[in-house]
Amino acid sequence: MAGESGRASSLRPLDPNRLRLYVVTDRALARGRSEVEVVRAALEGGATAIQLRGKDWSSRELYRVGRELRQLTREAGALFVVNDRLDIALAVEADGVHLGQEDLPLAEARRLAGPHLLIGITAETVEQGVAAQEEGADYLGTRAIFATPTKAYREPMGLDELARLVQAVQIPVVAIGGIHAGNARQVLATGVAGLGVVSAVVAAEDVRAAAAELAGLIQAERGEA
Amino acid sequence: MAGESGRASSLRPLDPNRLRLYVVTDRALARGRSEVEVVRAALEGGATAIQLRGKDWSSRELYRVGRELRQLTREAGALFVVNDRLDIALAVEADGVHLGQEDLPLAEARRLAGPHLLIGITAETVEQGVAAQEEGADYLGTRAIFATPTKAYREPMGLDELARLVQAVQIPVVAIGGIHAGNARQVLATGVAGLGVVSAVVAAEDVRAAAAELAGLIQAERGEA
Repeated sequence: MAGESGRASSLRPLDPNRLRLYVVTDRALARGRSEVEVVRAALEGGATAIQLRGKDWSSRELYRVGRELRQLTREAGALFVVNDRLDIALAVEADGVHLGQEDLPLAEARRLAGPHLLIGITAETVEQGVAAQEEGADYLGTRAIFATPTKAYREPMGLDELARLVQAVQIPVVAIGGIHAGNARQVLATGVAGLGVVSAVVAAEDVRAAAAELAGLIQAERGEA
Repeated sequence: MAGESGRASSLRPLDPNRLRLYVVTDRALARGRSEVEVVRAALEGGATAIQLRGKDWSSRELYRVGRELRQLTREAGALFVVNDRLDIALAVEADGVHLGQEDLPLAEARRLAGPHLLIGITAETVEQGVAAQEEGADYLGTRAIFATPTKAYREPMGLDELARLVQAVQIPVVAIGGIHAGNARQVLATGVAGLGVVSAVVAAEDVRAAAAELAGLIQAERGEA
């Protein structure tokens, strides 16, 4: 499958730096702007990875938007990941698929995707993170770190459990859920590879500026600026 | 991909007789019975093909139920097709995937699935049916033939347009939508390869008997009984 996609080279093992600012799309939060518009601005601001999420969309809509975002991310040199839908990820030649605990099992996805596709797994607990690493996950997402309207089905993970997760695994961790410029430093202090954001960028009046502010914070925190 | 699935031999070109009684699952119509319970009874009654449809389910739920239905259909010698989700179809080693006009494009699905997976396409019009055949569809479904609560977004196709569709293509056509024992003969008279049913079987108090009645009608109409 990976061979059929015409990918020139594998992204595995994944350079953690490519996850440093990981923006997840959300149409409902985007103030009426299209995914293309939001993602273009986020990339201009310094997003390094984009995840396409469209839970109630038709497959055709995911495919259409996915192809557009694949082109934008390729031009920007950013990672492109599709949430949940392995078929869409493969069809649009995404770099990866992100799987939650209620999505396809990791081993099944790897069997179908071949050796090159990145597979990210949502670790709702430290134990799930360790298990996902053992099963070959390329990176981990988290359950919401802070309270957020996007994923409110469970108590937030919090910074202490996030730090334990980061320490328990060798693969990169992208923290997500309620992260914004005001708490980004605390999150980065746990040793995460990247900040995952939805509303802090997607819902911002100035998407590019919001992404640039977070990218600047990451640079500063790492002593790069 | 098809090679990885361990399929012994290709089902293409598809024997139209395998589509003669094509039952589509619907949890909301099943009177609280599980898909496994309904499908087992339908197969006992003479269903020759099962399509798994679970539009709002998680991928994990589709995978779980899909694996169970794959086992049941394999034991019964029946076709097993997954609606919309190519990744689930491949993961559970289904015989085919059924794609509507808002699902993945046929050519993309064929590229990802390899040469052996059956691909059925919903033809909402004669023109779409002809186009799907040209693009390599293995069989066609239809938009609703009669008025039905399941798919009420459009005027029913009716028997005249169904007959034109059947005559316009060489690949087998499964008529679906509002079909039951009371109108099955009229539908069969158009030359369709099979009857597609949802509520007439899935919602029946006695699923096995409902499937057996339809199977008997098909046999009788074809002079086999």
